[in-house]
Amino acid sequence: MMTSNLQLTAEGKLKHFLTPEGLSSTLLTNILDKAETFFDHSASQVKIKSMPLLRDKTVVNLFFENSTRTRTTFELAAKHLGAEVVNMNIATSATSKGESLLDTIRNLESMFVDAFVVRHAVSGAAHFIAQQTASHISVINAGDGQHAHPTQAMLDMFTIRQHKKDFSHLRVAIVGDILHSRVARSEIHALNILGVKEIRVIAPKTLLPAKIETLGVTVSHDMAQGLEDIDVIIMLRLQKERMSSALLPSEKEYFQCFGLTQNRLKLAKPDAIVMHPGPINRGVEIESQVADGNQSVILQQVSNGVAVRMAVMAMAMLS
Amino acid sequence: MMTSNLQLTAEGKLKHFLTPEGLSSTLLTNILDKAETFFDHSASQVKIKSMPLLRDKTVVNLFFENSTRTRTTFELAAKHLGAEVVNMNIATSATSKGESLLDTIRNLESMFVDAFVVRHAVSGAAHFIAQQTASHISVINAGDGQHAHPTQAMLDMFTIRQHKKDFSHLRVAIVGDILHSRVARSEIHALNILGVKEIRVIAPKTLLPAKIETLGVTVSHDMAQGLEDIDVIIMLRLQKERMSSALLPSEKEYFQCFGLTQNRLKLAKPDAIVMHPGPINRGVEIESQVADGNQSVILQQVSNGVAVRMAVMAMAMLS
Amino acid sequence: MMTSNLQLTAEGKLKHFLTPEGLSSTLLTNILDKAETFFDHSASQVKIKSMPLLRDKTVVNLFFENSTRTRTTFELAAKHLGAEVVNMNIATSATSKGESLLDTIRNLESMFVDAFVVRHAVSGAAHFIAQQTASHISVINAGDGQHAHPTQAMLDMFTIRQHKKDFSHLRVAIVGDILHSRVARSEIHALNILGVKEIRVIAPKTLLPAKIETLGVTVSHDMAQGLEDIDVIIMLRLQKERMSSALLPSEKEYFQCFGLTQNRLKLAKPDAIVMHPGPINRGVEIESQVADGNQSVILQQVSNGVAVRMAVMAMAMLS
Repeated sequence: MMTSNLQLTAEGKLKHFLTPEGLSSTLLTNILDKAETFFDHSASQVKIKSMPLLRDKTVVNLFFENSTRTRTTFELAAKHLGAEVVNMNIATSATSKGESLLDTIRNLESMFVDAFVVRHAVSGAAHFIAQQTASHISVINAGDGQHAHPTQAMLDMFTIRQHKKDFSHLRVAIVGDILHSRVARSEIHALNILGVKEIRVIAPKTLLPAKIETLGVTVSHDMAQGLEDIDVIIMLRLQKERMSSALLPSEKEYFQCFGLTQNRLKLAKPDAIVMHPGPINRGVEIESQVADGNQSVILQQVSNGVAVRMAVMAMAMLS
Repeated sequence: MMTSNLQLTAEGKLKHFLTPEGLSSTLLTNILDKAETFFDHSASQVKIKSMPLLRDKTVVNLFFENSTRTRTTFELAAKHLGAEVVNMNIATSATSKGESLLDTIRNLESMFVDAFVVRHAVSGAAHFIAQQTASHISVINAGDGQHAHPTQAMLDMFTIRQHKKDFSHLRVAIVGDILHSRVARSEIHALNILGVKEIRVIAPKTLLPAKIETLGVTVSHDMAQGLEDIDVIIMLRLQKERMSSALLPSEKEYFQCFGLTQNRLKLAKPDAIVMHPGPINRGVEIESQVADGNQSVILQQVSNGVAVRMAVMAMAMLS
Repeated sequence: MMTSNLQLTAEGKLKHFLTPEGLSSTLLTNILDKAETFFDHSASQVKIKSMPLLRDKTVVNLFFENSTRTRTTFELAAKHLGAEVVNMNIATSATSKGESLLDTIRNLESMFVDAFVVRHAVSGAAHFIAQQTASHISVINAGDGQHAHPTQAMLDMFTIRQHKKDFSHLRVAIVGDILHSRVARSEIHALNILGVKEIRVIAPKTLLPAKIETLGVTVSHDMAQGLEDIDVIIMLRLQKERMSSALLPSEKEYFQCFGLTQNRLKLAKPDAIVMHPGPINRGVEIESQVADGNQSVILQQVSNGVAVRMAVMAMAMLS
């Protein structure tokens, strides 16, 4: 769906960030390295460094779907870079007057803005906006339908590198509702580009897309077998609305088959880390003791999200 | 309804901006000249210059009606001037506790704010607030009922001057629902003050106020006749709710009689410009080919709105 | 419920501000003195001084209940101190995905924020967050259930000191719905700590908590008797929903018994001041002529609220 060059300038620099798909290992690594520069480890309390790289730039948070966590980290990231931020919850505003997406974009770009951070329920929305918008504007995909969530994937890559240093020897398991997950799709692309040894998806057949193997993953339908030799476990949030849609029997049965418990965690490598994009459903896809346990890096993911989003915005808006 | 001196300081400077009515040609021209100073034409991409003229000032966006576009340009304009901005959507907040408008204003002015940007469904609301508020506070009308929308009128004047230089020889047509349009009222006042040769309103009789000629306009009920010799065409948005109110037969019939098509556009002067306050209803009051065509300056209006609102805020808050 | 040391650092400085209860007279006086430093009386128009004491700090306004006035003064206060502010209306966001309060807090603190300003319908919510949150984060209670509203109490203390200089000789009446009022509870604690001569609560029996005398107040059920010798009258807002709950007969009867009229005001000392936390119900608990009269300091309370909240944030976040 995505052509790599739409995301890059003629010189090969990042212009839009829509999906990891089609980007080089070097570019993804540059994002991780850039994000690292925003951390201040000098004090006892790790901090984020504010750097006015985007002074006099304006970022529009264009959220057609609600998302407190993602919107807030983008807002904080932009402000730490000195940009002005305008939050637009489009679900409740312009489109209520029946204006088309394209007219909304045309109007906003005429207000001298420099970037759109876009969350939309339709797959391809950010891609469409990047194709249509003025050439000086950058588009950052903050989640489009079931397609991609590239900054979530990159903050996950940052977290993995933080704990495991090198990607090449890693076996990574992604567990849960792969079928509906833009997070899983972007993670699979990023992990393959960064060259992990194996990506294993663990899910019931009803929650796996057809021909998932073609994305470069191995498949397991069983947690005991699937977690063997795993270095990194990424649990996905189970959307409760799937329950009523005949894809799943019940929360309880799902937890019995695919929930990550302390006992199951022992089946992975002893130093395996546990990740989750949040918000977590305690007792549905993950046991509280695991979510809060010492192998969990879930809250580090949130922290890393601020720095990774700063990196992506700075690189795209200054390319 | 509006006395000119409420808008002016004792020295005749702009204090509040509630309506163009009663203001001098010199003052309106000063607003346009001031707006021009905020553009930076030095780079290939035209930019807005941030200037901290309002540092340590606080602007409250007091929106009793929703308006993404207007609210956002005021917010951006205030931030470009270095002001702090607080957005208040009053429809959903203070008044839910039953507080009167006057008590809301008294409370906000006690918080050391310097300006109110007011959008309200009731004609005269901004005028009332300007009369009642503390003497150091400026009130900018961002649209009150069917009365006035002065910054919209001034960004339109800016756009006309940008393309036509001099107002004195111009014939301007305003087409559509004049009856319900605060934009049309403020445009008619501003165009007359700036001394255009003719303002022609083109509309069905049901969408014209009684005795509209007393505002200094000529009237036409026919597009073919009405567009003759016209330099500037201002199309108004057709509120779809008018359809059901027996004022209009149908969208289709309206478009056939008063929609601006490429063929009809040829009836005006060859260098006529096409304007619209937005959001546009494609295929209702304007054909897409015209809205997106090379005589359309609709998106330039949006850009000019940022600079014009900066000018109005800077002049009123520093007078 | 509250242990004093949760609010203090090991050195006895303010860390969180959850309730006046358990704090020393010296500390409360320090807050008032600090607030005074933010006023600029040099010009004809009193102003608030912006001071970048909290530059590079981030404040999250975490409002689980709507409150335009309180949220706006905290937002303005934080911005005047140079902090970045993120507004989160949690009622409509994260918890709609079913995340627990604790998970919400854990996530936000991972985003490198420095303070939570918390408004919550449940008594003890701010206290719970202060107990649970990371050690570098300050929690400011912006109202929790019927428990405490300490910044409101401190802006009231500031306003009283402004007019009456010394607390030790004062008789203060608090009139109205004591039973449901977090404002009243925090005022009673603060007034006792600062050593007023008498706190008199005036209310019908149905709107008084059991054993209210144990808080260190005298009780009256009669306005004529209760207002005698009073220096400061604090009127409470009557929540209209109490009417239907059998606690009260009618608005009209309440006003006849406990409303503050011009005639009743004459029963207090001639220089008594009239206060109200707002928003006021004109004609329910207070007559308009009194609310707008020259003994009313209600709008000064609002102004003082900005400075007092700046003081509390600066002290807590820099301790």
